Amino acid sequence: MPFPYKKMTEEDFAAIRAVTAPERVWVGEDIAPEYYHDEMPEYGVFPPELYVEVLDKEEICAIMKYAYEQNIPVVVRGAGTGLAGGANCKYGGILLSVMKMNKIVCLDKANMTITVQPGMLLTDVAAAAAAEGLFYPPDPGERTASIGGNVITNAGGMRAVRYGLTRDFVRCIEAVLPDGSLVQFSSNVVKNTTGYDIKDLVIGSEGTLCILTEVTLKLLPAPKFSRTMVMPFNSLAECIDMVPRLLQMSAVPTAIEFLERELIDIVERNLRKMLPVKEGEAVLIVMYDAGSEQELLSACNEAAEGALEAGAIDVYIADTPERAASVWSVRGAILEGMKAESVAQEECDVVVPRSRIADYVRLAKAIGQKHGIRVEPCGHAGDGNIHTEMLRGPEMSDEAWHTGTQACLKELYAVSKEFGGQLSGEHGIGNGRLEYLKPFVGERMYKLYQSIKLAFDEKLILNPGKIIVFDEKE
Amino acid sequence: MPFPYKKMTEEDFAAIRAVTAPERVWVGEDIAPEYYHDEMPEYGVFPPELYVEVLDKEEICAIMKYAYEQNIPVVVRGAGTGLAGGANCKYGGILLSVMKMNKIVCLDKANMTITVQPGMLLTDVAAAAAAEGLFYPPDPGERTASIGGNVITNAGGMRAVRYGLTRDFVRCIEAVLPDGSLVQFSSNVVKNTTGYDIKDLVIGSEGTLCILTEVTLKLLPAPKFSRTMVMPFNSLAECIDMVPRLLQMSAVPTAIEFLERELIDIVERNLRKMLPVKEGEAVLIVMYDAGSEQELLSACNEAAEGALEAGAIDVYIADTPERAASVWSVRGAILEGMKAESVAQEECDVVVPRSRIADYVRLAKAIGQKHGIRVEPCGHAGDGNIHTEMLRGPEMSDEAWHTGTQACLKELYAVSKEFGGQLSGEHGIGNGRLEYLKPFVGERMYKLYQSIKLAFDEKLILNPGKIIVFDEKE
Repeated sequence: MPFPYKKMTEEDFAAIRAVTAPERVWVGEDIAPEYYHDEMPEYGVFPPELYVEVLDKEEICAIMKYAYEQNIPVVVRGAGTGLAGGANCKYGGILLSVMKMNKIVCLDKANMTITVQPGMLLTDVAAAAAAEGLFYPPDPGERTASIGGNVITNAGGMRAVRYGLTRDFVRCIEAVLPDGSLVQFSSNVVKNTTGYDIKDLVIGSEGTLCILTEVTLKLLPAPKFSRTMVMPFNSLAECIDMVPRLLQMSAVPTAIEFLERELIDIVERNLRKMLPVKEGEAVLIVMYDAGSEQELLSACNEAAEGALEAGAIDVYIADTPERAASVWSVRGAILEGMKAESVAQEECDVVVPRSRIADYVRLAKAIGQKHGIRVEPCGHAGDGNIHTEMLRGPEMSDEAWHTGTQACLKELYAVSKEFGGQLSGEHGIGNGRLEYLKPFVGERMYKLYQSIKLAFDEKLILNPGKIIVFDEKE
Repeated sequence: MPFPYKKMTEEDFAAIRAVTAPERVWVGEDIAPEYYHDEMPEYGVFPPELYVEVLDKEEICAIMKYAYEQNIPVVVRGAGTGLAGGANCKYGGILLSVMKMNKIVCLDKANMTITVQPGMLLTDVAAAAAAEGLFYPPDPGERTASIGGNVITNAGGMRAVRYGLTRDFVRCIEAVLPDGSLVQFSSNVVKNTTGYDIKDLVIGSEGTLCILTEVTLKLLPAPKFSRTMVMPFNSLAECIDMVPRLLQMSAVPTAIEFLERELIDIVERNLRKMLPVKEGEAVLIVMYDAGSEQELLSACNEAAEGALEAGAIDVYIADTPERAASVWSVRGAILEGMKAESVAQEECDVVVPRSRIADYVRLAKAIGQKHGIRVEPCGHAGDGNIHTEMLRGPEMSDEAWHTGTQACLKELYAVSKEFGGQLSGEHGIGNGRLEYLKPFVGERMYKLYQSIKLAFDEKLILNPGKIIVFDEKE
């Protein structure tokens, strides 16, 4: 066991400068405080001892080789848009930014793939694909995230119902192991039974197993036609009951999101973004992509008829890109709206079987009421992934907020587990959900996670104290 | 390290009988020799010391707990249809058959999933889904395989182009670890970032990490319309060049298979199954599924027009289920046809980037000629997975066959690696491809595989000597 890690010295700083460049290395108080945390400072603010911006995989290998020998922890940072407190330097050491590694390595039209460096922004990857008439579907909302961050957290997002998660688009990973070795997990092939599937293990591992240096992503032909519909219902239960019906139809929806009227009101009141549908206590936003207009029409007609049969008050069809954009802008503004109505937020990112969404949402609100916390669930109905936001009013004491949210989280996770759900659907464990993992998965599974971590990183130098912890006394 | 394993005694036999039932336990020469190997006895014939047919997960836990304490190796056997020599008892010990664990645990219509025991046949899983109007797409040809075997080898098959591999349909795994603990990897949810993704690591691990006790599989709405087309070309190169064109069209084909005339002749000559297309040196068989007739027609028209533009001699549309069946029966009879034309076979199951298929096939034939081995490549053009069959003529000496096939394999793997391909696309490593793995993936990756194996199975008692080996002198 590595505890305590080496405290970095002038000699260590010089060694890192020597394998990179002095103008890309900052130490101590010269490191900007924004690098102490991700987008959830609630989940940890920790200064690194050294911050370095690398240019290529050779620099990463050299840094890791040194850190491995010297027992110095290393944390990788992308765009810092994580929501789990994953990219902070809990044990000090080196913060390694890959944001200057932001190039396209290769866009392979014949194999319909793009190979990029990890610091490229998601939005730039999507644009590069679009420029060739191709399509990179994962869209976790935060388009200024780095693609490496998306891969290492297995980012989800709106379009997962039809297209799947980031995982489903990763064909190959090149990475540096904690000892500085450069390895490649799979290659640009569509199937592979050569040894263990380490590629999928690494996806979603939150920077605790290896450092990405290149990722090869599958692209699709761009869908030619898209349409968004809004289906208002008189109750949340009717709204959610529509989800399995949609999923059993012949066309797979691209996205299925649900919003309660209370959340729509928050967005309309605070941000003046108006949903064109005024009826209903809860609405479904449903989107279809299609290769032909006929296909699109037949999908939308089947969905609309099914919705009306299932009790929808109406079906609003956003039949121009502008109207679709206005619907999605309301959905996209929810977090912002909630921030405008509160002085702090806590979040629970459970995923439950799709059939249990309505039950979960009902219980989540009751749990909030019980503990005096305003709870607003929203999110990916098509995935069963409910972002359960907790909002702090200005009147609330630190004590009441802390005790209330902790009590809520405990009960929300218990409900998720009882329903056959999981602790986190897409935001990950990081540092923020650390204490909840072991009780959720059990001792034996936790021990297996630890063994897997040690199989990659026996010195525990890569992003230590995230996902799982080890006893520092060992 | 466990070497040597314990040689089983009468006491051990009694212990296994005590936790199962005497009438389901066989020892020594009472064990039927068919259980010494899978469908490729070329890849290993090894008698177990004890053969047991288990009824439930509790029996598996009890057996593993005992074997773990006593240092006895355990190999799990499903239907025995593997093609890599994975399910044989290389070190003796216990052969544990799950074929009596063949029940449906739950068919969940709301979540569109089926949970089954591992010994259920693939064909029965597919039929159970179909009875509810649902669809389990993976179709690796061998429909009498067990579903557990499919999951633990990540079976591929014809329909992978559109629907993906077995992996893409596994939502949850319940399994017993080598120490006898029962654990669950993920649950019936569609996304999950709770801890490491062990589910995907276990899929394709060929019985070396844990024993499956239940799997929950995603189902789809059954496609309403399907059509198969045959596209003959004057050359293999033209035929293969059509593949990326098909994949860039707006509808994703369900299957894209290629056949050279020589193989069609083999099937027609030996099995009297006739392909309705007589022209062309090479043909593509292309299938589409669709939710509506319009969608199907538009997909088929785009494909047919594209094929004619790309030089297809003709496009034959199998517009009745009978005609489609006759086309697929030729494709399905290839292995049987090759067996009829040879006295032994060796096989290479490489996967290459789709853009390199034509180059690979050309080189594969040249390599065969150079070493005096008849090489017949065929298979999944849409996946780049080329089953490269080597056929032994009756005139060939043991020496010439052995030396020739070894030389061919070595060169074929080198070509695959050079092209950015992999050693095995869907058949796995097992015992048959063991010696080729380390040179292919390199020392560092092999060491990582070993560490992962040890993270699950530090005593190396689960299917030892498969995928990776450890030094017996350690």
